[in-house]
Amino acid sequence: MKAIVILSGGLDSSTLLHYLVKKDGLTPSEVVAISFNYGQRHLKEIECAKFQCSELGIEHKIINLSDFMKDYKSALTQNSIDVPNIKDVLGDPQPVTYVPYRNQLFLTIACGVAESIGAEQVFFGAQMHDLYGYWDTTKEFVERINEVVSLNRKNPMVILAPFANFSKANVAKLAIQLNVDLSHTTSCYNGKEKACGTCPTCSERIKAFKEIGEKDGVEYG
Amino acid sequence: MKAIVILSGGLDSSTLLHYLVKKDGLTPSEVVAISFNYGQRHLKEIECAKFQCSELGIEHKIINLSDFMKDYKSALTQNSIDVPNIKDVLGDPQPVTYVPYRNQLFLTIACGVAESIGAEQVFFGAQMHDLYGYWDTTKEFVERINEVVSLNRKNPMVILAPFANFSKANVAKLAIQLNVDLSHTTSCYNGKEKACGTCPTCSERIKAFKEIGEKDGVEYG
Repeated sequence: MKAIVILSGGLDSSTLLHYLVKKDGLTPSEVVAISFNYGQRHLKEIECAKFQCSELGIEHKIINLSDFMKDYKSALTQNSIDVPNIKDVLGDPQPVTYVPYRNQLFLTIACGVAESIGAEQVFFGAQMHDLYGYWDTTKEFVERINEVVSLNRKNPMVILAPFANFSKANVAKLAIQLNVDLSHTTSCYNGKEKACGTCPTCSERIKAFKEIGEKDGVEYG
Repeated sequence: MKAIVILSGGLDSSTLLHYLVKKDGLTPSEVVAISFNYGQRHLKEIECAKFQCSELGIEHKIINLSDFMKDYKSALTQNSIDVPNIKDVLGDPQPVTYVPYRNQLFLTIACGVAESIGAEQVFFGAQMHDLYGYWDTTKEFVERINEVVSLNRKNPMVILAPFANFSKANVAKLAIQLNVDLSHTTSCYNGKEKACGTCPTCSERIKAFKEIGEKDGVEYG
């Protein structure tokens, strides 16, 4: 049985990839990881994704959506919208770093690839955000999209988000337990050589490692 | 209020485009049509889509997904899988002409574009198939995908499929009433210069025009 994993190269999806082959009983040859180039500022995350796949011996597909997603309104795809500081998005239900329907798009493509290669499961690293929010990482989103893809008459698909109830600290703890090379994961939205330490994802990641009392492998500028 | 229409250049979506501006009260400047190149055999449908938009003065976006969708397992994207004759698919719940998660993908991209430009509605020409079936053109599919996109906290989207309960004959009748130039619509899956007349969509279209006693503008080989 084959499974697809959506792999950004961030902490959550990289940890998920390791979890699947080290804890969940899948062999590397049963897993295909997909990363997306959507014109994101932090395109360097794809290099991290490549590293993680190569380390685990997992097939890696990179799909380029940047031609049309560069026009999507988001701080992650448009230079005219600044990446906010964490203080500006605290409690925001839809910060400017939200990319319209991005996760639904990634899941839908993953289902299409899955059905084409005979895979029955799509894994998604959605994790409960602590400090701000996106509708398309919630448990309810995963439930409802499963209700859609279960309608497929011949090859009903299952989308699994094992970290949907995890805090970022839970994921960080698991990454340490699974011995994920954290220096080859990236979370910073700014996508510069060193992580900024102030954007929403940097802040969340710093907070998480502080909470669990472990050292992160990421260098901050 | 802006609306997005998914426009293949086939009978259903072309009729939908005309319906929106001639009957549903939208002005051409309120509508943006999106067509997709997904490596389909019948790529000439995009020329039809262009014609219909130009005739009505509607903005037309063409999004290219062929780089990855050429690998999708379907008779519409792979030359190694023959387009079947209608007799081979009668009553089939998922014929080989089904493209994995294609409609969900198109709707998801349409929602992303819609949210980026401030549109609140996405129109989809799904029509009840008479002779065979696709899970992703059903009323239930439209209902469930609406349940997903309604979760968007800031810009909940509505997907509308006004022809979901229409037979092909109902759509053909409406196309005649709305004076759609049928010679610039194409339905044939084979995508040759003249329509084949035997593939599932040709057969359905021929049957529909016969039922309503009207002449189709499409030339059959």
